[in-house]
Amino acid sequence: MPKISQKGQKMPESPIRKLVPYAEKAKEKGRKVFHLNIGQPDIETPQSMIDAMHNLDVKVIEYSHSAGIISYRRKMCEYYARHDIHITPDDIIVTAGASEAILFAVQTCLNPGDEIIIPEPFYANYNGFATSAGVKVKPIVSTIEEDFALPPISEFEKVITPATKAIMVCNPNNPTGYLYSEKELETLREIVKKYDLYLFADEVYREFCYDGRKHFSVMNLKEIENNVVLFDSVSKRYSACGIRVGSMISRNKEVISTAMKFAQARLSPPSLGQFASEAAMDTPDSYFDEMITEYKARRDTLVAALNKMEGVVCPNPSGAFYVTTKLPVDDTDKFCQWLLEEFNYENQTVMMAPATGFYSTPGKGINEVRISYVLNVEDLKKAMKCLEEALKIYPGRTI
Amino acid sequence: MPKISQKGQKMPESPIRKLVPYAEKAKEKGRKVFHLNIGQPDIETPQSMIDAMHNLDVKVIEYSHSAGIISYRRKMCEYYARHDIHITPDDIIVTAGASEAILFAVQTCLNPGDEIIIPEPFYANYNGFATSAGVKVKPIVSTIEEDFALPPISEFEKVITPATKAIMVCNPNNPTGYLYSEKELETLREIVKKYDLYLFADEVYREFCYDGRKHFSVMNLKEIENNVVLFDSVSKRYSACGIRVGSMISRNKEVISTAMKFAQARLSPPSLGQFASEAAMDTPDSYFDEMITEYKARRDTLVAALNKMEGVVCPNPSGAFYVTTKLPVDDTDKFCQWLLEEFNYENQTVMMAPATGFYSTPGKGINEVRISYVLNVEDLKKAMKCLEEALKIYPGRTI
Repeated sequence: MPKISQKGQKMPESPIRKLVPYAEKAKEKGRKVFHLNIGQPDIETPQSMIDAMHNLDVKVIEYSHSAGIISYRRKMCEYYARHDIHITPDDIIVTAGASEAILFAVQTCLNPGDEIIIPEPFYANYNGFATSAGVKVKPIVSTIEEDFALPPISEFEKVITPATKAIMVCNPNNPTGYLYSEKELETLREIVKKYDLYLFADEVYREFCYDGRKHFSVMNLKEIENNVVLFDSVSKRYSACGIRVGSMISRNKEVISTAMKFAQARLSPPSLGQFASEAAMDTPDSYFDEMITEYKARRDTLVAALNKMEGVVCPNPSGAFYVTTKLPVDDTDKFCQWLLEEFNYENQTVMMAPATGFYSTPGKGINEVRISYVLNVEDLKKAMKCLEEALKIYPGRTI
Repeated sequence: MPKISQKGQKMPESPIRKLVPYAEKAKEKGRKVFHLNIGQPDIETPQSMIDAMHNLDVKVIEYSHSAGIISYRRKMCEYYARHDIHITPDDIIVTAGASEAILFAVQTCLNPGDEIIIPEPFYANYNGFATSAGVKVKPIVSTIEEDFALPPISEFEKVITPATKAIMVCNPNNPTGYLYSEKELETLREIVKKYDLYLFADEVYREFCYDGRKHFSVMNLKEIENNVVLFDSVSKRYSACGIRVGSMISRNKEVISTAMKFAQARLSPPSLGQFASEAAMDTPDSYFDEMITEYKARRDTLVAALNKMEGVVCPNPSGAFYVTTKLPVDDTDKFCQWLLEEFNYENQTVMMAPATGFYSTPGKGINEVRISYVLNVEDLKKAMKCLEEALKIYPGRTI
């Protein structure tokens, strides 16, 4: 039997998935499991996207242009202009989710062995893409004590080496929900400019900003137009994670023309998803207004409930639909498994993502979890009641 | 401005696309261009797939399982059983087209620097996937004189080194249309077994067999179950290239569990495409019967027309919808460009894919082209008339 590749052996398992077998067993026992572990929103997909499929009027579902359907890319430019981001269709490659966009960018910009700085905790799959491209992630720690704000410039400079080629941020952040301010992004701009690095930014949660805060895009950082690569996705914005339509955007023409070679090798992004995404571009503001109101209520419920529990520390983040919170337990990997295997409160339990999977530094995040607030307020309250009761009796509790 | 990666620089440009700007200019001049260059069939997508979209009944377009929707994978197993291929849903990872399946397999099974043997000419994008994974393609030549049959075992053994990890075949073949016989595949089995190599097989044209020939799958080669990885796709079978639904299939559990880590990193294959593909599994045999009748008529028209032209040599392949044919010209790259830039016959011209892009050995295929017979018989006849007239006056003709 031939051997598996070294890269295949090294590929990290998704930290979100490793508890799935335990959740399945809990369900087999008849338990209700509240899923706070995944980023699959329950909000309805806009009717315009569903209608686009109901009214599908083609005889042959053909390949699209490798960079995506031109009418869709034009519509995207209008969407970005409304967000004060001014680009042309030639700056856009439509991809199979933001995932493919990240893979294209890493392969286009970094050599195997190159380093990419990412503030941790960070979206776990970045590790997968880095491993896949043979690139080293150099984490710098953002701490719960500082609400997971961007670490100071000095922390970046400590880890910069001749092999450093890029910095990557996710804003608003998955898994912390932190929304970087324009001032913080200006700090990034300085470092990027000084060391001539690529700046990769995942802005898939752009609309998910609360407390009257406004999102500032890396695309509007001056004088680093050729350094910035943006990743975007339809998944969260329109609650349509399954359509797998994202994009890689840059004003750097060489980056786009090189990434296009990878895009052509895989022929085209999904056509049906693009038809639906193009229809989504006309989604009225009211859709987002309602969505933001709903998510804000959930966040408020969640953060308040968490901070009322003894020994729990939870910042009050202004973006996305995640919090990373500290629990008074020995090890959240064990605790989260215990919740599914051993615990129930009125035949209910909670599934959360242990935070170690979001850190690249071993041992970090051992008493933190990521909670996605993708359930309605009532279910969230029930889930928090479960957690509260669990923390009272978990054998590895630290208070 | 930061540098592009070495891999990005090395990525080959798609040979099918490089003539596109010339075709656009020809069209601007008001010329009709017969597209024989691409594998985008004109056959209608089965109504069941379109209906699946018209009847889409979901509120949220959610992520699917990373390996694909389980009901779809079960249906796939029934499809394969009808083709005498017996597998379980756990042997299948649904992917974004066969392209993603190939990427997963190469990353799972080969290390950078490893070698993969592919009979040339081969599907040009294999070069892209190999470059992307840092793997070396070792071509062995299949010749037009032998109708592009599988080279003898001795040719494989000549290029096998300690770095050889896999052999890849496409059956029926793109770009030659050659259908490997069971006997030829048994030869492959011998080599694979002797050297314990992976055998990658792209069987996306399984149904496209003519002259009463039957397809034999690598999945039915005995005693190499753990070596075989199959790539498949909905694109050509159901004339639905844009839905981007393919699969990677293997009975090797370690290969599948490792590839699943890459699959989880990209979350899920496209849901809408999977809904349509599941519906396609019930496509009646009559759909294929009609399709095969149509393609056979096209092939017969094309091959007869080609072989009637002076100095043209074209085998009569039994599969897929391509021929690779030899033309009496100095250089098909120049000729195909000339056809678009300089030539017209009654204001019509032809676009074909120069074959050099399908060879990895420099200089090979310089007087061959790949022709896709994805146009109806009438258009094919007109296109062949253009080609015939062009060959009479092309300045670089060799007869």
